[in-house]
Amino acid sequence: MAPNSTDGGRVTLREVADVAGVHPGTASRALNAQTRALVNEETAERVLRAADELGYRPNPIARGLKTNRSYTVGVLIPDLMNPLFPPIVRGIQDRLEEAGYTPLIANTENDPERERIDFERLRARQVDGFITATARRDEDLLIQVAAIGTPVVLVNRRLDQALLPAVVGDDRAGVRLAIEHLADLGHRRIAYLAGPQQVSTGYLRYEGFLEAMRDRGLESDPELIRFGDAFTEAEGMRLCSELLDGGAVPTAIAAGNDLVALGCYDVFEERGIRCPDEISVVGFNDMPFAGRFDPPLTTIRIPHYEIGARAAELLIELQGDTEAPPPQIQLPPELVVRSSTAPPATA
Amino acid sequence: MAPNSTDGGRVTLREVADVAGVHPGTASRALNAQTRALVNEETAERVLRAADELGYRPNPIARGLKTNRSYTVGVLIPDLMNPLFPPIVRGIQDRLEEAGYTPLIANTENDPERERIDFERLRARQVDGFITATARRDEDLLIQVAAIGTPVVLVNRRLDQALLPAVVGDDRAGVRLAIEHLADLGHRRIAYLAGPQQVSTGYLRYEGFLEAMRDRGLESDPELIRFGDAFTEAEGMRLCSELLDGGAVPTAIAAGNDLVALGCYDVFEERGIRCPDEISVVGFNDMPFAGRFDPPLTTIRIPHYEIGARAAELLIELQGDTEAPPPQIQLPPELVVRSSTAPPATA
Repeated sequence: MAPNSTDGGRVTLREVADVAGVHPGTASRALNAQTRALVNEETAERVLRAADELGYRPNPIARGLKTNRSYTVGVLIPDLMNPLFPPIVRGIQDRLEEAGYTPLIANTENDPERERIDFERLRARQVDGFITATARRDEDLLIQVAAIGTPVVLVNRRLDQALLPAVVGDDRAGVRLAIEHLADLGHRRIAYLAGPQQVSTGYLRYEGFLEAMRDRGLESDPELIRFGDAFTEAEGMRLCSELLDGGAVPTAIAAGNDLVALGCYDVFEERGIRCPDEISVVGFNDMPFAGRFDPPLTTIRIPHYEIGARAAELLIELQGDTEAPPPQIQLPPELVVRSSTAPPATA
Repeated sequence: MAPNSTDGGRVTLREVADVAGVHPGTASRALNAQTRALVNEETAERVLRAADELGYRPNPIARGLKTNRSYTVGVLIPDLMNPLFPPIVRGIQDRLEEAGYTPLIANTENDPERERIDFERLRARQVDGFITATARRDEDLLIQVAAIGTPVVLVNRRLDQALLPAVVGDDRAGVRLAIEHLADLGHRRIAYLAGPQQVSTGYLRYEGFLEAMRDRGLESDPELIRFGDAFTEAEGMRLCSELLDGGAVPTAIAAGNDLVALGCYDVFEERGIRCPDEISVVGFNDMPFAGRFDPPLTTIRIPHYEIGARAAELLIELQGDTEAPPPQIQLPPELVVRSSTAPPATA
């Protein structure tokens, strides 16, 4: 009776349709207040009764892109000045435009209030869906947006609970590559300069650091771990200064991202510390021009263009009455060894 | 009778209103087909007759931001991957949001067809105006958009004729700073790797190069001048390779922008040429991270954030029935000397 029943016992739209004896498309229209008038009144009542009996809760993204389309998609970016986002936007745009959609890009400046306003304004402009890189781990706003019928795909960052489809880099695996590289070089006193913990990219990389250290039998010295408020060069400078002013001295620093690594470079220059001779640094993202820095930055390459492209594909595919759990796509990272890492001086 | 008459004998809306004996606001509504119905029929006829007699041609931007507002502004960027644009976008956004407007950003990929589609879609979304960095020197599309009543402000690039308001860096003055710097160091054989000539930034910088060379009594050797199809690192590599494969050898290269300069760095690395010891390089823009390159790039700083901010202010100010000629604002450049320039080896 329920060929599409998903794990976890979630009731699907197809099950509701089967019980009501109607086509799933009819059930969908009956369940959506905006389209209910399109369905015979008696049929609509039968569907609603079936949904009620089965305990059906509509999957917010199940409705997919509306049929009455504007052919625009809202794209929310937390910080266009962070060089990792332009390639993501480019990937999103290329795929959307292949499918005839135009992205409308908003830059939320990592400000929840701006983000709320941008969502509202883009919804008022009747975008067919959203791709957003702004997610905080426990964010309700996105769920609400999806719940009122506009599909939402997360990109780069995801929620703690897999309530919305997401395309991200594998943050844990990426940090593992960084730590294993440093450990292979002989480093044992490895510092971690973490990004903000309320976003998945900050949290999962920190988790990945702890796991990778443990798995290599290395101690994570709390004095060598610092948490930043943002993934910026300025925060990198602040964290690196604090770290070096503390008593504990690392032979290597794993930075939350490449901009944080650049902040370390700034502090090294101020203090006359040679990289990698005295302290190795590994970044995260392989942002544009990371290979141009002095020294060229060893880092973890995340396929940002591809992440953007897959997110756009996912949004386009989210059409009709798919009832599958929201896909969580993680793309694999890659270690890029350049000249900011070397064996520790003491080794 | 015509206190607001502008130079060049252009007939103003105020003059039309005076002749028709109506308020300028009434004249404006009567002249706009979309709002004519708001005006008494006889009055409208009187205004149209006056406009006809005086030879009035509506200033496309004169209508300013519509009163029936969506509080969104379309922002068109030719290439988000070019690092000079995020600061411009940021400047635009900050000022627009202060005034309660949300920018909707589109990336046209320097493709006129994409640009046309983006304009259409954003117009369909009823944006209150446009700020665009996509202008080609002789572009009709922008004039057409403005003519149908949506205000347009150009940013970073402008038209040959000052038909639309524009906020740009002073390209000529910028290149002059670069050439004077090289000449002061003792360079006489100065190559120029120009950007595309169909956009003002490519054309005016090239013009500025010729003027500055002439004013310093230096010869512009045609063999030392190359024209690129785009302001990209790949084009910089191509042009620099062509230049060095030609017979003439420069002691310094002025690059159309910083990405073109990076293309020179790539060729130098391939060929084992030391910069600045053998050839000096000066860029243009002072894009983010230009000081991080190896060697840190001497370049011309253009105040991109400020350019974006002023463009947004201009759009917001374009309200009511201003009849002034479209302002052409040029912000001053600044020479930033780093380590990619030095006296010529032979000096």
